[in-house]
Amino acid sequence: MKVKPEFDLIPEDGWRKKIYETVYLSDTKAGKIFDISLLILIIFSTVLLMVETIPIIKLQYYKEFYYAEFYITIIFTIEYILRIICIKDREEYIFSPLGIIDFLSIIPFYISLFFPVWHFVAIIRILRILRVFRIFNLADYMHDGRFIVSALRHSSRKIYIFLLFMVIFIVIIGALMYVVEGGKNGFSSIPQSVYWAVVTITTVGYGDISPATPLGKLLSIIVMLCGYSIIAVPTGIVTSEFRKRRGSDIQCSRCGNEDNEDNARFCKICGEKII
Amino acid sequence: MKVKPEFDLIPEDGWRKKIYETVYLSDTKAGKIFDISLLILIIFSTVLLMVETIPIIKLQYYKEFYYAEFYITIIFTIEYILRIICIKDREEYIFSPLGIIDFLSIIPFYISLFFPVWHFVAIIRILRILRVFRIFNLADYMHDGRFIVSALRHSSRKIYIFLLFMVIFIVIIGALMYVVEGGKNGFSSIPQSVYWAVVTITTVGYGDISPATPLGKLLSIIVMLCGYSIIAVPTGIVTSEFRKRRGSDIQCSRCGNEDNEDNARFCKICGEKII
Amino acid sequence: MKVKPEFDLIPEDGWRKKIYETVYLSDTKAGKIFDISLLILIIFSTVLLMVETIPIIKLQYYKEFYYAEFYITIIFTIEYILRIICIKDREEYIFSPLGIIDFLSIIPFYISLFFPVWHFVAIIRILRILRVFRIFNLADYMHDGRFIVSALRHSSRKIYIFLLFMVIFIVIIGALMYVVEGGKNGFSSIPQSVYWAVVTITTVGYGDISPATPLGKLLSIIVMLCGYSIIAVPTGIVTSEFRKRRGSDIQCSRCGNEDNEDNARFCKICGEKII
Amino acid sequence: MKVKPEFDLIPEDGWRKKIYETVYLSDTKAGKIFDISLLILIIFSTVLLMVETIPIIKLQYYKEFYYAEFYITIIFTIEYILRIICIKDREEYIFSPLGIIDFLSIIPFYISLFFPVWHFVAIIRILRILRVFRIFNLADYMHDGRFIVSALRHSSRKIYIFLLFMVIFIVIIGALMYVVEGGKNGFSSIPQSVYWAVVTITTVGYGDISPATPLGKLLSIIVMLCGYSIIAVPTGIVTSEFRKRRGSDIQCSRCGNEDNEDNARFCKICGEKII
Repeated sequence: MKVKPEFDLIPEDGWRKKIYETVYLSDTKAGKIFDISLLILIIFSTVLLMVETIPIIKLQYYKEFYYAEFYITIIFTIEYILRIICIKDREEYIFSPLGIIDFLSIIPFYISLFFPVWHFVAIIRILRILRVFRIFNLADYMHDGRFIVSALRHSSRKIYIFLLFMVIFIVIIGALMYVVEGGKNGFSSIPQSVYWAVVTITTVGYGDISPATPLGKLLSIIVMLCGYSIIAVPTGIVTSEFRKRRGSDIQCSRCGNEDNEDNARFCKICGEKII
Repeated sequence: MKVKPEFDLIPEDGWRKKIYETVYLSDTKAGKIFDISLLILIIFSTVLLMVETIPIIKLQYYKEFYYAEFYITIIFTIEYILRIICIKDREEYIFSPLGIIDFLSIIPFYISLFFPVWHFVAIIRILRILRVFRIFNLADYMHDGRFIVSALRHSSRKIYIFLLFMVIFIVIIGALMYVVEGGKNGFSSIPQSVYWAVVTITTVGYGDISPATPLGKLLSIIVMLCGYSIIAVPTGIVTSEFRKRRGSDIQCSRCGNEDNEDNARFCKICGEKII
Repeated sequence: MKVKPEFDLIPEDGWRKKIYETVYLSDTKAGKIFDISLLILIIFSTVLLMVETIPIIKLQYYKEFYYAEFYITIIFTIEYILRIICIKDREEYIFSPLGIIDFLSIIPFYISLFFPVWHFVAIIRILRILRVFRIFNLADYMHDGRFIVSALRHSSRKIYIFLLFMVIFIVIIGALMYVVEGGKNGFSSIPQSVYWAVVTITTVGYGDISPATPLGKLLSIIVMLCGYSIIAVPTGIVTSEFRKRRGSDIQCSRCGNEDNEDNARFCKICGEKII
Repeated sequence: MKVKPEFDLIPEDGWRKKIYETVYLSDTKAGKIFDISLLILIIFSTVLLMVETIPIIKLQYYKEFYYAEFYITIIFTIEYILRIICIKDREEYIFSPLGIIDFLSIIPFYISLFFPVWHFVAIIRILRILRVFRIFNLADYMHDGRFIVSALRHSSRKIYIFLLFMVIFIVIIGALMYVVEGGKNGFSSIPQSVYWAVVTITTVGYGDISPATPLGKLLSIIVMLCGYSIIAVPTGIVTSEFRKRRGSDIQCSRCGNEDNEDNARFCKICGEKII
């Protein structure tokens, strides 16, 4: 899982270079072991975070979780320091997205030592889960990831128009249902009715609010059929973008056929070699 | 964000022309500022409209909302008058869709001064939100918008057939469930059962009505599997239309046919070579 | 809305031919009026059928509905007799699908005159709604209708395999949840759990049954993610069939290009005229 | 429904060969009858299994179900023995997937004769339903089945990336809702909130947990709109894969590459002309 260096290392000092190779790269055996261990620790600490909030467990094992969090934070802090000391351009790392996430992973614990604001800052720790992206160099997955992102970016304009129409439609429907249901049956205000409209048009359908009047039910039938059909539009947009950009289509120099796949060596229409 | 003039202006009078450029066009700096301010005001007034209906807020801030609505309506009225006085073909604007919406945006307030029918006419004001389409000249978005509309129009016939089948299927299923559940468990009439059938086949599934008898549950399983699969049909129709009209349709120089695909070298109607 | 004669008429008798032209065809003015009237009557009688089951209305207007049904049945009976007497091959009509539906539309009323089994046989009358297919000759819609049907038939084998997997998956999941929830929380038997599995995997999600145990919720998360993703498979099957059979693709005799649309007169690749 | 022999038979003994032909193959009349009977028995026993768990029926007909299970197990055991004695490579069958399922189909009953662990092991019997795959030789369905599997395998990488993003998004949203709803309204822990997030983003929407605070409802609106739109991504991935491998992939005679599309004239790997 080779990856290009992200940051400039300090080449002269052998020990700094060694740390860099272990922490940032995955060529060496130490690098791989570091990556696997870090991945396991990230997943383990996230699971701890989630389980910690279960009331029964919180009551009984509060101390154990605190100690676990203490040790995990120490390990992540050591890792953070290691990442900093072995590179030249330190600010580039500290203010990069991954650097900020690494920082937010450890800072809540230290804050909590001084300020009694544990609950909220504790949740920031959940962002640790984003660190798995570092572990997965995505070298093999990069092509497919870029493919999805590229297709989404090219279709983004059509999606914005679609979303704009959806928002306007939802607000008008919400206001209409508010009047039809007379402000009752859960439709106590336009915001509540808009919430119902979103729940319905996305076909989630909690049922916490649902129309009680006949006219309301008739209107909701129209909303449901719309939501059920409209899903075809963004799906069609995204799917046709996937088809347009099937990887990087290569054009044959002889016959001009653009329909060659990105791993083709010969044109499928005329047989000409592809450069 | 340049846009073609919608209405004939009165070119002689300099001040009328100036107003026209500001209100209808977005080339000048004044025009851009006007557009942004109007957009902010539309969004702000729509949010006010929605928040105004929350019972707690309605009780406490009724006066403030009334004053806000008063001032907003004054501003919109001034804008409406400006739009009228600077063009020649006034009826063309007044009876155009955007013109009617502009009118409906301000008239409820004036009506409420004379008639105590505030609640319903107040909702008409929500149509203000459609005015954002005026602000977004959609010059950049026009191509993609037309693309979606064109694809939908070409696939509309297949969608009508599909909807016809859906309606007939839903009515028959509703009647069947009404008999199976014996008019109980919420299936108190065929219209209620049809409402349940729509809720189920669109996979919304509120749960306000759900079958209680074993046969009813069996029948509902069939309905759910149908609804789950049938969504593939309109999605397939829309997606294949998006694929057919992949981006810019090319117009033939000889016969004017616009229906050529973007990889066509010869016009499919007259055979003329496409440049 | 011209349509080919379905049944052999009796050409000698002028009045029989006239009735045939009016009832079965839509060329003449009388034929068109007949069609429109029949369509209105079908829709009106179906709406009556649905509204009749609303308890409040059933109590108060029982008599009026009975009389309406009486007259409607008389009119449909006259129409049925007309359809029979003006054709030669009578059995062909009587036992054709549309003929059976026409018969079932009127027979419940007559049965109810002799047997007190009104409720169930009344529902058979809802099949009248299928008669709208006769009115819509679908001459214009025939092409698109056949297109959808053809695409579905060609993809049917893949859909059967898909459904087979779904059924097996649903039964196993249902049995598993039954054990995990210990036969409680609504999962009182495997059939009930299978019902829950269908409600969940189709994303309908009534909420009448939902897991209460942590393991049950974990298992349901897997089921939901599967159902959410699996919808892509039948959609993909149907959509790719729609793409394959874009109407009847015509092959160019000169260059062999198969990518011509069905309304093309010239090949889009080489410009050759299409026969 | 001819199928290739799965296991080496013992060709010398005529009676062993006869049994093999009946049990494993479907060419002979005996083979076909055997297959049909087995299929009916599998479906019948699975239905029995499901119905057996309905409380009312379990109370009343416990004995009858026990006897039915006894006889069915005897028949399946005889079949298992037949399958074993007529082949040479017995371990190959016993440890093959189908062999293990056949074993698990009969072993629960025997276990229950010695250990009172009926309830759980009884559910293992539901795996019998997987045995239908043996009956359906899928000779005709094999092509379409491989088509679906092949398309899914080629798109699997993109699907993994998509699922990874989904999981991370769901965990973060769950944690956020937990804080926003303050650990109340059903959001009693992060795992519960993650369960709600999955229920919502897959649009299942049970309604057993739904946000009560305004901020929670606002956040849920965002989650619902995301779930509603995101479904387009896996659908687009799978659909475009179906399109790429449109029907029969053609194998190149020179280099053996099977990855040529069906409209290719030259092999894309070696350039050899495709017949």
